[in-house]
Amino acid sequence: MATLVQKFGGTSVGDAAKIKRAAEKVKRAKDEGHEVVTVVSAMGKSTDALVDLAYQLSEEPDKRELDMLMSTGEQVTISLMVMALKEMGIDAVSLTGWQAGIRTEDVHQNARITDIKTENLERHLKEGKVVIVAGFQGMTPEGEITTLGRGGSDTTAVALAAALKAESCSIFTDVTGVYTSDPRVVKKARQLQSISYDEMLELANLGAGVLHPRAVEFAKNYSIPLIVRSSMIDQEGTVVEEEASMEQNLVVRGLAFESAVTKVTVERMPNRVDTLSSLFTSLAESGINVDVIIQQVTEDQKVNVSFSIHTQALKETLEVLETIQSKLQYQKVRHVDQLSKVSIVGSGMISNPGVAADMFRVLAKEEVPVEMVSTSEIKVSTVIEEKYMVKAVESLHTFFELDERVEVRA
Amino acid sequence: MATLVQKFGGTSVGDAAKIKRAAEKVKRAKDEGHEVVTVVSAMGKSTDALVDLAYQLSEEPDKRELDMLMSTGEQVTISLMVMALKEMGIDAVSLTGWQAGIRTEDVHQNARITDIKTENLERHLKEGKVVIVAGFQGMTPEGEITTLGRGGSDTTAVALAAALKAESCSIFTDVTGVYTSDPRVVKKARQLQSISYDEMLELANLGAGVLHPRAVEFAKNYSIPLIVRSSMIDQEGTVVEEEASMEQNLVVRGLAFESAVTKVTVERMPNRVDTLSSLFTSLAESGINVDVIIQQVTEDQKVNVSFSIHTQALKETLEVLETIQSKLQYQKVRHVDQLSKVSIVGSGMISNPGVAADMFRVLAKEEVPVEMVSTSEIKVSTVIEEKYMVKAVESLHTFFELDERVEVRA
Repeated sequence: MATLVQKFGGTSVGDAAKIKRAAEKVKRAKDEGHEVVTVVSAMGKSTDALVDLAYQLSEEPDKRELDMLMSTGEQVTISLMVMALKEMGIDAVSLTGWQAGIRTEDVHQNARITDIKTENLERHLKEGKVVIVAGFQGMTPEGEITTLGRGGSDTTAVALAAALKAESCSIFTDVTGVYTSDPRVVKKARQLQSISYDEMLELANLGAGVLHPRAVEFAKNYSIPLIVRSSMIDQEGTVVEEEASMEQNLVVRGLAFESAVTKVTVERMPNRVDTLSSLFTSLAESGINVDVIIQQVTEDQKVNVSFSIHTQALKETLEVLETIQSKLQYQKVRHVDQLSKVSIVGSGMISNPGVAADMFRVLAKEEVPVEMVSTSEIKVSTVIEEKYMVKAVESLHTFFELDERVEVRA
Repeated sequence: MATLVQKFGGTSVGDAAKIKRAAEKVKRAKDEGHEVVTVVSAMGKSTDALVDLAYQLSEEPDKRELDMLMSTGEQVTISLMVMALKEMGIDAVSLTGWQAGIRTEDVHQNARITDIKTENLERHLKEGKVVIVAGFQGMTPEGEITTLGRGGSDTTAVALAAALKAESCSIFTDVTGVYTSDPRVVKKARQLQSISYDEMLELANLGAGVLHPRAVEFAKNYSIPLIVRSSMIDQEGTVVEEEASMEQNLVVRGLAFESAVTKVTVERMPNRVDTLSSLFTSLAESGINVDVIIQQVTEDQKVNVSFSIHTQALKETLEVLETIQSKLQYQKVRHVDQLSKVSIVGSGMISNPGVAADMFRVLAKEEVPVEMVSTSEIKVSTVIEEKYMVKAVESLHTFFELDERVEVRA
């Protein structure tokens, strides 16, 4: 009997009616003859309310105690989900993270799963029960409750799928699958039947994904097919799996974009071996997230460094640069805002060296100047003026044959 | 260093401001040089909201899952309490029931504590931390989460005090202590400095107490002094302890009363050995709570049985009696409603045989007819007409010297 793992996020279990609807999906998988393990998140915004309370009591709440507090959210959902299932005649049992044997490292708020002791889970499955597991949480070997940080419930689901050698892991969410691009902006965006782990990872890291990168990485490492699908309507989702089993004809699978990007250029620093590390260590220590980085050495052996940041971080970035002026001995700092980042992602690029060139040609044809470029094996990112973003995205979407059409499964 | 156990009920931790106020009381005990273990309940009515959700999903929610659900309430409070303490510079740590080593029998919704494994608690105390423990919950040897039922947090506190050989157990609540009678009705009611376990048990069982009988019994068995005190204002509370250390001069310590009592009389049954057991087993099986019972054998060897019930249970009682008429072969059922029960409680009665007579004399002087009487070693209960209740209570309160005055500790 194949084991299926399912996961329902917070919006999919936001109230009693939604929990019932999710329970119906669990029941269906069970009725089809599968062993079913279902991971649930905290209901809707219930965790936010708890965290609000914490900040009423402490400016900087203790991390261990935040874990103690926040882990109650999923514990509420698991019990309610079992009640809903029992009402439908399905035998089920709820398990907290620690009861489900999810062991983590001794880090609060952002622990990684180290091991899953499956005895308890397997005992309940053998008794024919659906097992409902609290996502996002685990326990250290010393019996301390931990939480897994952002995307934690996805990670719980994938880790359980790996430990139980499940056939697949379905992530039920408020979208119907993974799209070629954000359908709110790109009207012709369409849902993908499948996407590779690596492509999904790039899209997830670009903020365009519905899955957390950690969960995707975990699924990739253990070759667990992930299925992203809607918790509200019945529709096939998108399968995240190894390249081999997918449509091969698409060079570019997805297109991600974000606005509010600012480019900062630090000009004419002496060309020393520690210049780059000094600069970016200082920025990192202030919690400033730097994205694309370009370094250029001038003819007279001075160094210019440009990097992109979120526009919100500009003020702090300039302050940090001010404090390290004497150290870096730069001549000038300039910045350009109202920029955006547009990226194309696809495993097919590896064997198609001309893809970046294609992208630049499309942008040139639309008369969009490119401010910065960054590439990986399966991704090309460009920084362009914000006002060109939508036009650029739509042209690229059409050029790379991502527009809505009837897709035939390979 | 003496160990103190404290307990804060739901109304004492109902919001962030109240949690802060409770934390100040914890801090004070710690600052005085004690090892402090504090038990907390769920915030205000938060558990009710969770149970409401459960009933939206199931007409009869699974008991195991209700425990899973309800135990989150205290887990929220413990973490918030630690955050509040840390903000005040007090090192503290929260422990759920299972983390605190509270082992229970394998019964859901109403488990009894079987054992407390104190290693974890003692380790944290040795490190100088205040330990905040979730009340009302425990774990079975198989790792199932259980709750202790009504009065559960009081029981947790007393059980921890016994296991840790604590000096005392303070129950912080929304009243300032134990009163001679209900101060909302008896204007001259006053707070007691001390009361014995047995007296407290009688009062608690009469519904007049602020403590759950289970907790009092536990405290009595392990000789843990209980201190009932206000969580809102600074004031000495009432100590519940062994008789020896208390004022000896009071024969009657407290006066309890309740209205909406109905007396039911089953007349002229054949005098068989199983008559009483048949009658009261049938009533018990229907969940009808019977209080005072009087049996009388007539001259011609027929049996009359009178018993008091809550007026709400009258209709069902009459129905049950109807179904067992052929079995009991009674001639008639009569009932009198608009009655009340007035009880006096005091350990001093044991050595003062005239106390019941005193009570009847007071009632006679006020021209209050007595419908029923029931006595125990330290209690006399009378059932009288409801319209006389307040007058009777006030007269008895004065006669037994319970009225407000300056009390001098023995």
